[in-house]
Amino acid sequence: AQTTRIAVTPGDGIGPEVVGEAIRCLETLRTKHNLNLEWDQFPWPSHAWHQEHGESMPEDALAQLKAYDAILLGALGDPGPLNDPDRYLLTDSVSLAPLLEMRKGFDQWVCERPARLLPGARQYLADERAKDIDMLVIRENSEGEYVSQGGRLRKGTEDEIATQMEVFTRKATNRIIRYGFEQARARAADRSTEGRIREFRTLNGNTCESQVCLITKRNALRYWGDMYTEAFEEISKEYPDVATHHELVDAACMKFVQVPWAFDVVVASNLQGDILTDLAAVLSGGMGVAPSCNLNPTDPDMPSMFEPTHGSAPDIAGQGLADPTAMLFTAARMLEWFGRKDPVMATAGKELFGAVAADLAENAGARRGTQEIGEAICQRLSA
Amino acid sequence: AQTTRIAVTPGDGIGPEVVGEAIRCLETLRTKHNLNLEWDQFPWPSHAWHQEHGESMPEDALAQLKAYDAILLGALGDPGPLNDPDRYLLTDSVSLAPLLEMRKGFDQWVCERPARLLPGARQYLADERAKDIDMLVIRENSEGEYVSQGGRLRKGTEDEIATQMEVFTRKATNRIIRYGFEQARARAADRSTEGRIREFRTLNGNTCESQVCLITKRNALRYWGDMYTEAFEEISKEYPDVATHHELVDAACMKFVQVPWAFDVVVASNLQGDILTDLAAVLSGGMGVAPSCNLNPTDPDMPSMFEPTHGSAPDIAGQGLADPTAMLFTAARMLEWFGRKDPVMATAGKELFGAVAADLAENAGARRGTQEIGEAICQRLSA
Ligand SMILES: CC(C)[C@H](C(=O)O)[C@@H](O)C(=O)O
Ligand SMILES: CC(C)[C@H](C(=O)O)[C@@H](O)C(=O)O
Repeated sequence: AQTTRIAVTPGDGIGPEVVGEAIRCLETLRTKHNLNLEWDQFPWPSHAWHQEHGESMPEDALAQLKAYDAILLGALGDPGPLNDPDRYLLTDSVSLAPLLEMRKGFDQWVCERPARLLPGARQYLADERAKDIDMLVIRENSEGEYVSQGGRLRKGTEDEIATQMEVFTRKATNRIIRYGFEQARARAADRSTEGRIREFRTLNGNTCESQVCLITKRNALRYWGDMYTEAFEEISKEYPDVATHHELVDAACMKFVQVPWAFDVVVASNLQGDILTDLAAVLSGGMGVAPSCNLNPTDPDMPSMFEPTHGSAPDIAGQGLADPTAMLFTAARMLEWFGRKDPVMATAGKELFGAVAADLAENAGARRGTQEIGEAICQRLSA
Repeated sequence: AQTTRIAVTPGDGIGPEVVGEAIRCLETLRTKHNLNLEWDQFPWPSHAWHQEHGESMPEDALAQLKAYDAILLGALGDPGPLNDPDRYLLTDSVSLAPLLEMRKGFDQWVCERPARLLPGARQYLADERAKDIDMLVIRENSEGEYVSQGGRLRKGTEDEIATQMEVFTRKATNRIIRYGFEQARARAADRSTEGRIREFRTLNGNTCESQVCLITKRNALRYWGDMYTEAFEEISKEYPDVATHHELVDAACMKFVQVPWAFDVVVASNLQGDILTDLAAVLSGGMGVAPSCNLNPTDPDMPSMFEPTHGSAPDIAGQGLADPTAMLFTAARMLEWFGRKDPVMATAGKELFGAVAADLAENAGARRGTQEIGEAICQRLSA
């Protein structure tokens, strides 16, 4: 098989530390399975690079990264002490901009964020059924509220007007909805293999093993809300085996807290997906365990990007205290992504997921250092 | 004093039932305090009216309502069985439209939604500190994402483009932020009277008794995010006694789950406020206890509108099973609103709040009918 190449971009704060453990695990798996896997590290994007060069990445950054099959990103941002407005006002957006540049530059039109409350992860909800939380939020990652069109008229005056345009295309809408249905089917097939069948009800009362819930705010944001709804209704006809469901984004937030275990696949717009994935992440244990995958499933020449959703945590950086769990779940997802073309990669990905999950379950609440966790997981992998 | 007049619009489903108990309590308080209070009932806005007249309210509805000091609204919408797409696609937006028409027509530019987890209310979070949740979410209610500008180009084709414009003015931004700071002060004063002091930290390390947190998504929605942030920084200088804080909307959702007790006043845009208030409502007990106030604090000729945030619950309508608690908290808020000009009204409002809260605390989990709850609260009021 051809070599699969990863661009590793550790980034800021705890990024390098957690990325170090991801590499340790990848190394272990490479040896074990004889994976045809290589990686290079980059000092950018990062706050340090920005300090020195006045920009978070070199001008040809995307061109350099394009040679790889995936980007594994540690963490970005050096927002300084929370709530320091000077730094807040100046730096946060700059330091995180590369995330958006990569998504856009490589047309990573899917953002996949699984949220499963695994044993050992922190449970914020009182209801015991929270243990059954197992959803996949699929966020449209290429347009919508994030097109950055708009401006400020009469800036700084009493008469100022700020506008921000949301732009949604039918093409991007169709592809993300179809992707959602495909994932619902794939998840049902996986569960079936594992003997974990879930049941959802279709509109005409039939039982299905998977479900897609479409999120909009169509009672207020009518135009794209209607387009999304119509596209969803149309495409759902091709998937009679998948139950469908609609929620308004505000009600969805409420139901994520009340009955999160009732969701399977959730499809949402860029901004609404951003909001719902943070909520889903905390309900399934918090940022310390949450992976995020920015995927381009259509163009094999474009690298996909994998990042934990946690921040760079500058307050604990460099002390070996950061928990690499989210990073390792992210690396597992990346291997599974490679697994679409190479079954050994898929196996390695599942093994890594299993080892991280087992480590989490056994060490709930234990105080361990970054390396200690990484080493324990590698031992599991080699055992 | 002049007569204060309320337009009561019971609406759909359980609306008339819960409104009935609000009137019962208002009647009790009117007698007790000799309140100069009158009300008229309207059969619209409602689904029934829509069925008969092809519109949810008569054409001169706003003109009729304008003669009143406030609108007390039960519940709107008859979306039918959840997840029936035909009805979903056709009716939901129509039936709820009057809410937006009133907010707009009467320039109710503040939406105030208090979220306090009271004894007896359902606690969704595992952490015991949830008992300390006591925040006021202030939602900009007049513009932003809700201006309804946009459209669908090449509708229904593969090449369709849907746009939705967000429009924010500095004027509306300034007034909602200033309102937030004023409320923070007022809440601190109230707490001080009750001997419940809370502490928040300012940027230079001082301690304050109140806080305002500004929500934006300025790292992605730059234009109005920056304008909001600059307006907030500027206005905050006039309130050195109030601590300030910034959150991005996605992080705010997470922190609402992780540390909701750390928030005091939260100021958010129309859509982000819509999302955060639903989340705050569920974290403080759910829709069964959540009031919502749509206020015009600047123009005394414009009625404000008070509504519980729950839906019309068609599945239990007409059976005397609906819990009027949210409606009664809403009525209490309305009286307190009248209390800005008339101290007796303020007293009556506080009494109603106290009676509903005491009833909730004593009857947690009890199965009681709509009228039974209303009567119990009236007995407390007359005792
Ligand atoms: C950093 C920010 C621009 C980004 C987003 O809004 O997409 C982040 O919140 C995320 O969810 O990956
Ligand atoms: C019914 C709907 C238009 C409304 C809104 O989005 O404002 C509702 O969700 C609310 O929060 O009052």
